[in-house]
This record gives sequence, structure tokens and C-alpha cells, in this order.
Amino acid sequence: MKNVTSLKFVDEALIDLTTEFGWVDVAGASAGTACAGIKSTDRDDVVVLVAPGTAAAVTTQSTAAAAPCVWTRNRVPGPIHAVVVNAGNANASTGEAGRRDVESMAEYVAEHLGCGKNEVLVCSTGVIGVPLPMAKVKVGIERACDGIGATTEDVAQAILTTDLVTKVAAAYGGGARIAGFAKGSGMIHPNMATMLGFLVTDAAVEPVALQQLLEDVTTRTFNAVSVDGDTSTNDTLIIQATGHGPILTKNSPEWQEFAQALYSVCRELARAIARDGEGASHIITVELEGLASDEAARHAARAVCRSPLVKTAIAGGDLNWGRIVGALGAAQVPGLDTLDLDVAGIPVLRRGSPIPFDEALAASALSKEEIVVRCRLPGVGVGIAWGSDLTEGYIRINADYRS
Amino acid sequence: MKNVTSLKFVDEALIDLTTEFGWVDVAGASAGTACAGIKSTDRDDVVVLVAPGTAAAVTTQSTAAAAPCVWTRNRVPGPIHAVVVNAGNANASTGEAGRRDVESMAEYVAEHLGCGKNEVLVCSTGVIGVPLPMAKVKVGIERACDGIGATTEDVAQAILTTDLVTKVAAAYGGGARIAGFAKGSGMIHPNMATMLGFLVTDAAVEPVALQQLLEDVTTRTFNAVSVDGDTSTNDTLIIQATGHGPILTKNSPEWQEFAQALYSVCRELARAIARDGEGASHIITVELEGLASDEAARHAARAVCRSPLVKTAIAGGDLNWGRIVGALGAAQVPGLDTLDLDVAGIPVLRRGSPIPFDEALAASALSKEEIVVRCRLPGVGVGIAWGSDLTEGYIRINADYRS
Repeated sequence: MKNVTSLKFVDEALIDLTTEFGWVDVAGASAGTACAGIKSTDRDDVVVLVAPGTAAAVTTQSTAAAAPCVWTRNRVPGPIHAVVVNAGNANASTGEAGRRDVESMAEYVAEHLGCGKNEVLVCSTGVIGVPLPMAKVKVGIERACDGIGATTEDVAQAILTTDLVTKVAAAYGGGARIAGFAKGSGMIHPNMATMLGFLVTDAAVEPVALQQLLEDVTTRTFNAVSVDGDTSTNDTLIIQATGHGPILTKNSPEWQEFAQALYSVCRELARAIARDGEGASHIITVELEGLASDEAARHAARAVCRSPLVKTAIAGGDLNWGRIVGALGAAQVPGLDTLDLDVAGIPVLRRGSPIPFDEALAASALSKEEIVVRCRLPGVGVGIAWGSDLTEGYIRINADYRS
Repeated sequence: MKNVTSLKFVDEALIDLTTEFGWVDVAGASAGTACAGIKSTDRDDVVVLVAPGTAAAVTTQSTAAAAPCVWTRNRVPGPIHAVVVNAGNANASTGEAGRRDVESMAEYVAEHLGCGKNEVLVCSTGVIGVPLPMAKVKVGIERACDGIGATTEDVAQAILTTDLVTKVAAAYGGGARIAGFAKGSGMIHPNMATMLGFLVTDAAVEPVALQQLLEDVTTRTFNAVSVDGDTSTNDTLIIQATGHGPILTKNSPEWQEFAQALYSVCRELARAIARDGEGASHIITVELEGLASDEAARHAARAVCRSPLVKTAIAGGDLNWGRIVGALGAAQVPGLDTLDLDVAGIPVLRRGSPIPFDEALAASALSKEEIVVRCRLPGVGVGIAWGSDLTEGYIRINADYRS
């Protein structure tokens, strides 16, 4: 039985990642962190990322977008000096007071760094609906600005909430460096729920081109991750371009390689988020070939990643592939009576009819950390999505999160 | 602080339920059950519901609709003699063989009852992607047909899968009797995932009017239940009208009361499904007043019921109301900066700004079995949805379901 393996993903053009440098090692970039004691006093929870140049950003599509997201999206693409981030409080659903607090955060940073408040982007993550403790935040910002010189690991650590591990990635591309780090593990779904990501490059890129590139890459990476189906109020992905390196435009011969390097970095961070799904024991990769467009294929792949029944079956090591078909059907995917389906390398459906499989082989295949689901349907689209499985650990973490 | 209590739901016109009769006690209706041993040999798993007359049905909107759903939807509304149901195997994703098996089931029933195969509707529930053991099913159908005379509790029990309890309801309305029973606890979401419901009335109702009424009531009851966000391949709700009682048309003075009685029965069954969510410890009722239409309001209410983060917070007894706002935002609900929100009777948001609340009071309020979430936004719509919370028990049940 031939496996479903003819998929032609953009992944074929992946650029190798490097560990030679991190976010703070890109020319023109530096960072500081501090403990403001927003949620607890035993960890840093404020980060200031300094990288004067241009910036682009993608923020949540939620209609309950937090005040910092609204502030940030109104200032990109454009000239940006720094980004301030706090963990422990999302400054979401905080009304007019929350909007004033965002502006104050930008002002504090601007005062300390000697730039304009409109050159400062703001990100927050944490509990919703609680006013920011601004006296603490102010002290944290002051300390972070005074302590510029933090390592990439320091800043990647300071933005975490329920994450188990830090997430960093870097690559060379088009003669430039690109580095990034991210947080996210729960509430992750298409559109980057409670996901924060920070990228920097030494390339000089015109703001509008940088914004378009970031949006395109986000669609295929961070927005293809699903942990639990909710989209957060605070998702933000920012790229800062310092201009210390090569000047790149869409017409540069190096542009495509630069774009691929950015894709590779974002893909790695997105997969790290899926792998770190709260309480997750498996990463689920769904590759779908077929349907009318890449967008339709991605939508279908995400629907599988999002299904709680698929997630729990995989957590239980159970090759209950009917739930994958059920998830595709619930997502209104057409043509399922011709579906070819492989799970963890095991062919289970050909043209919509079940293929007998060996239960012992299936149990062994499902014990691997990464479970690849491959679907083939008529059509020209190609889509990929990543998610985590759903374990009892997820429930424990989320039932107790706020308290 | 005035609570959000001005909601005017159709619930105001509820008809009192009765325990005086059940499905088999409606004139012209009788049923048989048998053990076919499809999944195990220690319980009945085949049901035949005999109620010659007219029938209407609503089946899953999944594009992976199981063969029995396709068979049933092609024969309603119209003259129907009986319904056959099996548990333990969904006959879904079974290809051409599955389609033949449905027809054989209808033929077996027709032979035994002396009607045409096209007067027999078919429902299946259970594992997906496994061929029906037709030799066993045939014997089960024969025994069930020979054993007509089962009680309502017998048939309600025989259709269960992971349900903890049977679900029955009945009411008088418009001079007629209406009785029903249902199964469903996991995979429940808008559009009735893995939900089977069977209604019978002694009224004589013209098929098209019966179909329209059933669809309208389903939208406001079974389709407003969400346990875990997946829509099943096999959902079916059938009403049989025997015509032994009053002749009712849309122009009858009794029609409205008949419709309200049907609504009351379906609402009771839908809420029983939500309460029996796999591993659930709370029932969550979301009432939303506002938005452009009842449909938009229901969509928003369902989004809250479906959110795993809302579900886990309520399971944990945590008044983390920000997750409710997050779920509304993720569902693209507009106007959230003017949201009024009460949870379990506690005002937490007014015009989008948080209201301080007493944590001890909140913990006490969230210890109740039913948690009511009330949302008010600008607009004329009214919507209600029911769901269960999400506990570690849910994960255990679903990780091990197939094996």
C-alpha cells in the first residue's frame, strides 16, 4: 500500500536553522529584563526590546483585542525604536483605564530610551480583566531599561506564562540574520491565541514590504498552530529590522532566501508552541493535499488539529481515525467519500473505504512524539497545521490557572 | 448593581412536562429491543420503533454524514412505518459496503413488520470506520421485531453509548401527546454531534409542516447544545406522527400550543444531554441578549459554551470571566467594549469595564450544578446555549473510548 507522501509543502524550501546567534546578537538589537512583581516576585516579568529601525506586526483578530494590541497595530508598519512586554497581566477587558495604561507604558519606555512614545510598541500577556498594577510596571520598565544587556535566554524566559520551555530560533538568509523567540502553549489556535513572538533582523527592509512578508509567513506558521481552539485577546507577532545589514527589497535577488529564512524561523517557533501545548504529550502534524486552494486545505488541516476528540484519541494512543474523518466532515470539507488517509505512517482509508491495519503496529506508531496525519482529496490545495494532543494535564493546568 | 435579567427567551412560553406517559405510551407507537452483541453481549443494542404514520427528521450537517443519515434524509418528510437503531457501530466512513448495509437493515425490518423498505428509517451510533457485523445485526433486528412491547426505559437504555443516564421527556400540547427520548453526551456541539433523538406524537400532521416545525425547534434546542465542539457523522432527530389523535395544521388554534410542547420536550432532552456531558460536573447555560439577530446571538452564546478555556475554568470553580470575553472576541462578536456580563448571578462587567467581586461569594456561586452566564450587548437578538464543563474525567473517557 502506497502511503500518502506526494505532498509538496513549502517546507521543502526550508533554510537550516542555526544556534550561532540569538535575538540580542543581531546588529542593532539589545534587550533588558526586570522583575516588576506583577504576578509573583520570583521571576522577571518585564522585557524591553531595543532595535531602532522599522517594524511590522500582526495582532489578534479577536474583537476583544486587548488595549496593547490596538496600540501596536495602529503604529505598524513604520519606524519603531523599542518594544515593551509584560507577563502576568493581559491588560484586556480593562476598559478606558487599560487604554491609558498602555500609553503610560510607552511613555515610560520613551522617557528612558530617549525616543517618542509612538516609536514604542506594547505587548501584554496574562490574566484578563484585572487592571495593570501601574506602579509596579513603571518600576519594572525603569529597571529593564537600566539593565539593557540581557541574554536571549533571559528575555525568552521573562515572557513565559504556563510554557514549559523557552522557544528560540535563528537563521541566516539573503545575507541577513534573522532571530526570534516566542511564548505560547495554552489558548493556541489559528490566529495565534495568547502567542507572543518577537523577531529581529539586521536587514534594511521598507516597512510595507516587511509587513506583507510577515503577514504571509504568519498565515503559514503561527496561524497554523492549534492547541485548544480559542483565539486570545493579546496575540502579537512583531518583527524589527535594524538596517545594520544588507538593504533588501522585493526585487533583490536575495529576497526569496530572506523570506524562506523568516519562514523557517517562524515555523520552528510555531512547532515549538504546538509541542509545548499545556499538558501535551504529542505534537500532531496534519498535512492535507487537495481541495480548491491552499487556504481551504489549511482550514481543513486546522479543523483536525483543533478537534478535542482527535486530540484525546492521540493522547490515549488510540488509532481511532474515524474521529479525523468526523472532524473534516464537521468542518464542511467536501469529497470525503474519496479520502485517502494515513495516520503515523499507517494507511487507514483509500478512496473513502477503510483499510484493515495491525493494532500492535498502530500502538507502536502512536507512541512516537510526533504524529503525522496525511490526507489526500481531489484538488490543487496544500495545507499544513500543527497541534498538541489533549491530556488530563491540560485540564489540571487550565482549571487552576487564575488562582 | 442590577443584574442582567431582562432577557425574554422563548423559555417564557414553556409547557410543563409530564411523567404520565413515555414514547411507547403514545397511541399507535410501540417498540422492541434486543441484544445483537455488536460491541458487547451484556446489553441491548438494537431498537425498532414502530409508529406508522408520517415522519420528519433532521440529520447531521457533516460532509462525512454516515450512510444511515443519508438514507434517512432521503425519505423524509413522508410516510414512515418504523425506525431501526443500533448502538456500538456508527456505520460511518464505511464506503459502498456501508450503504448496502443500511439498505439491508431497512429490508430486514420491512420483512418482519410487513411494510416497504422505504418506510423504514435507520440510525446508527458508535465507532466510526468499522464495517457493521451484519449477521449479528440481522439477528438483533429479528429479535427486536419479535419482541415488540418494550418499555420506554428499555429503548432509552438500548441506544446509549457513553451516556451516564437515560434521557426522556413528555408533554401534552394542543390536545396531543408528545414524548421523546435521546442519547448523547460526548461529541456534542451545535448541529447535534453524536446525538440521537426520537419523538412521537399522536397528532395527525401533514409531513411538510411537521418537517418545518422540527427544524425550527431543533435550531433552538439540540443545535444549541455544545459539549466539545465536534459535530458527529451520525446525528439524527426523528419525529413520528401516528395520527391517532387530533388533526393539527398550522392554521389550527391548537398549533402554537402543540409547537410549544414540542419545544419543551426537545429543550428538556437537550439540557439533559448537556448535563450528561462526558465527565461533566456542571451544566453551563449562556443567555445572550443583543446583536443583530437571534441567530447571531445564538452563535455567540454557543461560542462561549464551546470554549475549552471557559469549560475548564468552570470545572475548576474559577470565576475567570476574561475567558468568556476572550471566547466572544474569538467568535468575532462586535461591540464588546459595551458588554455587560454576569456569571452565576455575579456582575463582573458593565459597559466593558470590570466590576470588583467578592472571591468567597464567587466560589460559592460556582459550586452550584448549573452555571448561568448572562451577556448583554446592543441589538435586538436573543440567544441561548447549553454546554457542559470540561474535566479530567472527559479526557479519560475519550482517550480510551475505542479500545
